[in-house]
Amino acid sequence: MQQAIAILDSGVGGLTVAKEVMRQLPQEKIIYFGDTARTPYGPRSPLEVIQFTHQIVDYLLQFQPKMIVIACNTATAVALDEIRARLSIPVVGVIHPGARAAIKTTRNGMIGVIGTEGTIKSSAYELALRQISPHIQVVSQSCPQLVPLVEKGLFRTNETQLVVEQTLRNLTDVPMDCLILGCTHYPFLTEAISTVMGPNVTLISSADETAREISTILYHKGMLATSNSIPVHQFFCSGDPYMFKKIAQSWLNEETRVTPVVWQVPHII
Amino acid sequence: MQQAIAILDSGVGGLTVAKEVMRQLPQEKIIYFGDTARTPYGPRSPLEVIQFTHQIVDYLLQFQPKMIVIACNTATAVALDEIRARLSIPVVGVIHPGARAAIKTTRNGMIGVIGTEGTIKSSAYELALRQISPHIQVVSQSCPQLVPLVEKGLFRTNETQLVVEQTLRNLTDVPMDCLILGCTHYPFLTEAISTVMGPNVTLISSADETAREISTILYHKGMLATSNSIPVHQFFCSGDPYMFKKIAQSWLNEETRVTPVVWQVPHII
Repeated sequence: MQQAIAILDSGVGGLTVAKEVMRQLPQEKIIYFGDTARTPYGPRSPLEVIQFTHQIVDYLLQFQPKMIVIACNTATAVALDEIRARLSIPVVGVIHPGARAAIKTTRNGMIGVIGTEGTIKSSAYELALRQISPHIQVVSQSCPQLVPLVEKGLFRTNETQLVVEQTLRNLTDVPMDCLILGCTHYPFLTEAISTVMGPNVTLISSADETAREISTILYHKGMLATSNSIPVHQFFCSGDPYMFKKIAQSWLNEETRVTPVVWQVPHII
Repeated sequence: MQQAIAILDSGVGGLTVAKEVMRQLPQEKIIYFGDTARTPYGPRSPLEVIQFTHQIVDYLLQFQPKMIVIACNTATAVALDEIRARLSIPVVGVIHPGARAAIKTTRNGMIGVIGTEGTIKSSAYELALRQISPHIQVVSQSCPQLVPLVEKGLFRTNETQLVVEQTLRNLTDVPMDCLILGCTHYPFLTEAISTVMGPNVTLISSADETAREISTILYHKGMLATSNSIPVHQFFCSGDPYMFKKIAQSWLNEETRVTPVVWQVPHII
């Protein structure tokens, strides 16, 4: 099938999913939407995040994608079921893939999860993990300071390292053997997080794992792209297109076409 | 859903899948069939392997499983499509999960595959890998001597190490960064294979990866087990139940109930 995979996120975080889809499924065309005007989603109410997600999905449907990927953990936690119920195409979130990968990885049964306030409050990872394996021990922590750093493009600064250290300090004594990066923005900070957590904690990127599950689902539904031509991806963002383009090109390591989309002020009735 | 997952193999190899299903999906009940009377499948004709696979599936259907797992690469290579077309329940093979994991793992784009003669002759891994990622380089080798060693329970003997060394000698100079264990018997020999291939080659177990994809598919179809009670697994084999039980208990590290099944001599018409 030559239709695109539509990927959405609150901002640039979903680019970590997009990059892995490009690497693991090089024949698939991607349409990406980053809601950079309204990032971060983490501190917002579930109702607001659900409303925003529906809006973006409506925008993306005009391109007739074959699959929707909610590449934002906060939106997956609160909106996945609604979006899935509404659409006839497959809708993939980023929480269950990370949970399954952590269950496959852990040997001592103790898994750490870091995410936004919205994701951690929802207990979505605990629910996903215990649905599959009831006796798994889970230690969660919200890290509200990390997404804004990534949206500013600050991945490897001293300030970033310091914030990551302070944020994760409480987790370093927990005898977990893997830590789920439960926000698609966090793989941008892998180096800093890995330095703090040390070599005995395997980092699970929900982005990498989601790309693999996209591959699994497209295969089982007979929906893999069959063309050998190189796909041309499209990127949309609701905020500053220059910052988005700068981060996207640096992360994806290729020329990126970014189209700005401006949310309309609603009519007052 | 409380129905079992049915797993079949030419012998004890599929126990590597069963063990990972038990670990990654501890609530799921397993019904296992090992066709130890007719192992190995590797040197058999595709027609014969297809016929055997249909027979075992027929046997397993009496238990009304919710999913069939063809935990044998040789049978997956030649019979998966037929079995899938015939049944309304999900049918999972072991080749695509390994292929997807290798694509996720490789950084240099060169992947090795070892398997039985039947699997390697079918080019099933090359096809699966290139369907997803056309420019992947694949180096394959059949290893007909390995399955008989495993079926005899010889996992860590000097003889085994020697045979593995001789078998893989040609592959050690190939600059691959991962090697797919394209036979579910091979994880029994992980130590020996790893010693020969060295630390720079990541071994991909099609067994481990298949367990994870079983988890993915059951979740997306809403078919995960919901009971918290510990499932009681059932094992059937067509050959010597004592050797099967010995290997199963040692590999699974738990008491195993094995029921022997004797294939009937066909009526002459």
